[in-house]
Amino acid sequence: MRIYEPPLDDIRFVLEHVLELPAQWATMPALADYDADIARQVVQEAGRFTAGILAPLNATGDHQGCTWEHGEVRTPDGFAEAYRAYVEGGWPALACEPAWGGQGLPHAVNAALVEMISASNHAWGMYPGLLHGAYACLLENGSEALKQQFLPRMVSGEWLCTMCLTEPQAGSDLGLIRTHAVALDDGRFTLSGTKIFVSGGEHDLTDNILHLVLARLPDAPPGPKGLSLFLVPKYLPDAIGTTRNGVTCDGIESKMGIKGSATCTMRLENAIGWLVGDANQGLAAMFVMMNAARLHVGLQGVGHADACYRHALRYASERLQGRLPGSSATTSLLTHPAMQQSLLAQRCAAEGARMLAYGAAQQIDIAEHHPDPGIRASAHEALGLLTPVVKAWCSETGFKVASAALQVFGGHGYVAETGAEQSVRDSRISMIYEGTNEIQAIDLVVRKVVADGGRAYSALLDEIAAECESAGFAERGQADILAEHLAVSRARLPDILDLSGRDKLYAYRIADDFLAATALLCLGRWWLRTLKVVRGTPGLDPALVRAKDVTACYFFDFELAQKRFLDHRLHMARTPMTTFDVSQH
Amino acid sequence: MRIYEPPLDDIRFVLEHVLELPAQWATMPALADYDADIARQVVQEAGRFTAGILAPLNATGDHQGCTWEHGEVRTPDGFAEAYRAYVEGGWPALACEPAWGGQGLPHAVNAALVEMISASNHAWGMYPGLLHGAYACLLENGSEALKQQFLPRMVSGEWLCTMCLTEPQAGSDLGLIRTHAVALDDGRFTLSGTKIFVSGGEHDLTDNILHLVLARLPDAPPGPKGLSLFLVPKYLPDAIGTTRNGVTCDGIESKMGIKGSATCTMRLENAIGWLVGDANQGLAAMFVMMNAARLHVGLQGVGHADACYRHALRYASERLQGRLPGSSATTSLLTHPAMQQSLLAQRCAAEGARMLAYGAAQQIDIAEHHPDPGIRASAHEALGLLTPVVKAWCSETGFKVASAALQVFGGHGYVAETGAEQSVRDSRISMIYEGTNEIQAIDLVVRKVVADGGRAYSALLDEIAAECESAGFAERGQADILAEHLAVSRARLPDILDLSGRDKLYAYRIADDFLAATALLCLGRWWLRTLKVVRGTPGLDPALVRAKDVTACYFFDFELAQKRFLDHRLHMARTPMTTFDVSQH
Repeated sequence: MRIYEPPLDDIRFVLEHVLELPAQWATMPALADYDADIARQVVQEAGRFTAGILAPLNATGDHQGCTWEHGEVRTPDGFAEAYRAYVEGGWPALACEPAWGGQGLPHAVNAALVEMISASNHAWGMYPGLLHGAYACLLENGSEALKQQFLPRMVSGEWLCTMCLTEPQAGSDLGLIRTHAVALDDGRFTLSGTKIFVSGGEHDLTDNILHLVLARLPDAPPGPKGLSLFLVPKYLPDAIGTTRNGVTCDGIESKMGIKGSATCTMRLENAIGWLVGDANQGLAAMFVMMNAARLHVGLQGVGHADACYRHALRYASERLQGRLPGSSATTSLLTHPAMQQSLLAQRCAAEGARMLAYGAAQQIDIAEHHPDPGIRASAHEALGLLTPVVKAWCSETGFKVASAALQVFGGHGYVAETGAEQSVRDSRISMIYEGTNEIQAIDLVVRKVVADGGRAYSALLDEIAAECESAGFAERGQADILAEHLAVSRARLPDILDLSGRDKLYAYRIADDFLAATALLCLGRWWLRTLKVVRGTPGLDPALVRAKDVTACYFFDFELAQKRFLDHRLHMARTPMTTFDVSQH
Repeated sequence: MRIYEPPLDDIRFVLEHVLELPAQWATMPALADYDADIARQVVQEAGRFTAGILAPLNATGDHQGCTWEHGEVRTPDGFAEAYRAYVEGGWPALACEPAWGGQGLPHAVNAALVEMISASNHAWGMYPGLLHGAYACLLENGSEALKQQFLPRMVSGEWLCTMCLTEPQAGSDLGLIRTHAVALDDGRFTLSGTKIFVSGGEHDLTDNILHLVLARLPDAPPGPKGLSLFLVPKYLPDAIGTTRNGVTCDGIESKMGIKGSATCTMRLENAIGWLVGDANQGLAAMFVMMNAARLHVGLQGVGHADACYRHALRYASERLQGRLPGSSATTSLLTHPAMQQSLLAQRCAAEGARMLAYGAAQQIDIAEHHPDPGIRASAHEALGLLTPVVKAWCSETGFKVASAALQVFGGHGYVAETGAEQSVRDSRISMIYEGTNEIQAIDLVVRKVVADGGRAYSALLDEIAAECESAGFAERGQADILAEHLAVSRARLPDILDLSGRDKLYAYRIADDFLAATALLCLGRWWLRTLKVVRGTPGLDPALVRAKDVTACYFFDFELAQKRFLDHRLHMARTPMTTFDVSQH
């Protein structure tokens, strides 16, 4: 069985030194009560909970999976008990507002919790995974009565939540949704239709389940602009435990991974629900939840990457195999150059993804709590750019590192016993759900870059440029390389805007490469910051300093050059590619 | 269930037009009886067999897996019947010498069979997968008596074969093998020890199973030079069906994929065996088998890549989802630029891998059958270079395309029903077994390039350069780009040889990137050849011409530039990287 070792030192390094959060919290009244000590305690406790309670259920959960019978779902052994411990520990409330019973901790600290939950047991983490997003959605869009009725029980974790979007004919294209809602006389609605791929649509963890459902009102316009959002509880709150609502689980999916998470087909038959937000504004309301969920998915990638890297590192240091050239003594796998390089690449990917994702969480805190409205607005804008990058890049990183880590184990990685292959299967889903990575890339380039004429994107480039300019003599080499890449991207921006105006498909053609190029620039910024920190902060642990320095240099020497390849592709995509004609086969 | 559509046109295109095999066969007496018509018939029949018999068992085989009880293994329903049909069809004998009952068909045609078996049912293909390698090993190393006794029943497929190498403490490092052999008075040996990861070590497909076992004689030197190869049958041939040999299956692995293939732990307890080849020369003897197996593994990657691409293409053309910018009509997934690009990249990867692998098979035919001994020797040398490239590049391509194809299905790709996720799991093993891809890369750079002072590698570069020089006006652009990349690699070669002499680990550090760069050069050669063919051959199907042209241009415009990134990394690796110190964590 894989043992989970929470990366407490690395997490603290990012929170305290790279992002310098404690100093920033002090400037925001809502977060001024928090300091490095509290954050450390929370992170340490989260590490204890995830390693002690969740990690031991990871392999058994995969092995047992969920079972469905007559509309009821049984989760794997121990999942329900672990959830009770989670609620008792107050974890669901970590980043919720104190006014609703939450602990109001910074999102960046919550990010550490989410990373560790995903790393120790991704499948289990699916159940509470949408709680915060649903909370944020209801908080922003719900009527006062709805909030009073439901928010406290969501914040406490007493009731869990789902997001019901996909239908058999409506996946990435939510405009095709057919589930319909009809108003009742009492202000409530009845909903009917079928939703698929509903994570945690049914389970035995909580007494009640709150579904947030996208549906159509009778007079709604066609397409995505005709969707409204409804809250549909499994049990109606007027008589909890007795009045079952018309929402039934018709089955669960047999999947590649996250087998301990029940992926449900939900049938709504005259189910009673409440409108959340305004009619036909469902997509916007849902996107509050979706954006929180996208950061969450990115953090799943961070968790997988880190846990898989550490697992492989431990194996490589213990497994005696092979000899170095010119020697006859058997050495550990770790001494072999190919393994060293792979592990260094894995570490670089995992730690880079962490900085990227936590950096986005930091922007949420600023967007919500900074006293200066201008700074709040900029943070909100930055978050719009960063969310798709974090979701796509970090989820892909999770899968890639899981596969690279499996490779370190050789044949032993392919057998179930080791636990390495489970992470490859589990991590793969994050590239798909909450908007496929291709949808993220389109969101970035079309909606966040082209739509505002590149204003927000230029601001992001400016910020990275400032990081380069403030580099000292020791990091000048790396700063100059990054500045060069920035200059290329900056020079290309007007071109991208211009071409997008003339060729509607251009932005769609370059989307994936543009996102990856953006991710590399952001990573360059964080690795440069890392170099500055470890070379300029007295009193840091020398081993940590050396590890970060090596990894940062590896990024600049071996990884960042990938951007030149992406720039080449962005350039080549100026000419429309020949239409892909299926009849040609 | 996934339907398998054998890519008959694409296979024929490579065999007849890219590699121009029929004309070449005519120049080799042993193959002079074969022509394009025979090859077409064989390929078509192979397509019928794999699509009709093997493909329908693929999903059920994954679902059922194998079962082990009291040393016996039961394969999934239908596997044994399919094997009988395979034997009756004469497929095991396809590329074996007529003198031993084989059909003596060219290896390049056999490659097409292997591709289609792997594409339709990788797990099933594991059982006969080692037959040809074991046959070649025994043919080259076995005594006349041993050959007389065993070869005919191997060629007919009556008995299946295994390769028993790995032990719990000895994976990539075979020098650590402990299984030992003691001579008996009658010239035979008794073997004892435990072997793991033995594919098809036990099953219900054939009456007898022949194990090729690496073991140590009492007076053997330590390490890999003290290994000898033995043939150990499950039933001793003096009394088939009654005298059970001391080789027992102690269990099978639960694995990520290829679940229909029994991966066995084999216990040898005073098992009777025959020495194959000379004492302490086991590794060399085994490598005849291993090299055949490595090409086979590369072809598994080709099969996965092609089948997954076609599966995704069909889904994308049928699935109605989303709208194009500026339109309100729902279109198929295939019209979306991100999907077009992904599918084009998948097609380019699959077809490139096919040309790479079939090109290596072509070299086997030349090495075995060309009347000119000098040409035979060059082909043998080229094969030494190409084998690790094919094994590593094509197996990685299989996994990457399987994952990219899954992504086209979105959430539907993650559920078992579609069949997309099974290919991701199945294809992953090919990057590991028969020498991990890292071992392949070391084999290439250390043993095949540095060891002979770059002579064979220079010859490969010369051959690709000749392909560039003979390009006509229409392909000049692509030929010049490829020639530029060639020049960079040629200029770097003396440097690599020089540095390898001074820094023993340098070649090991660059191995993976060097292999990938070599693969890109070889692919460039084949895509250039493809362009020449489709632009210069009258009478070809216009749809095929257009598809090949688009794909070749895509390779030169979007994929080949990756080599510049690899060249950058080769350059950066000149300086030893900081030692990876595990205590730093």
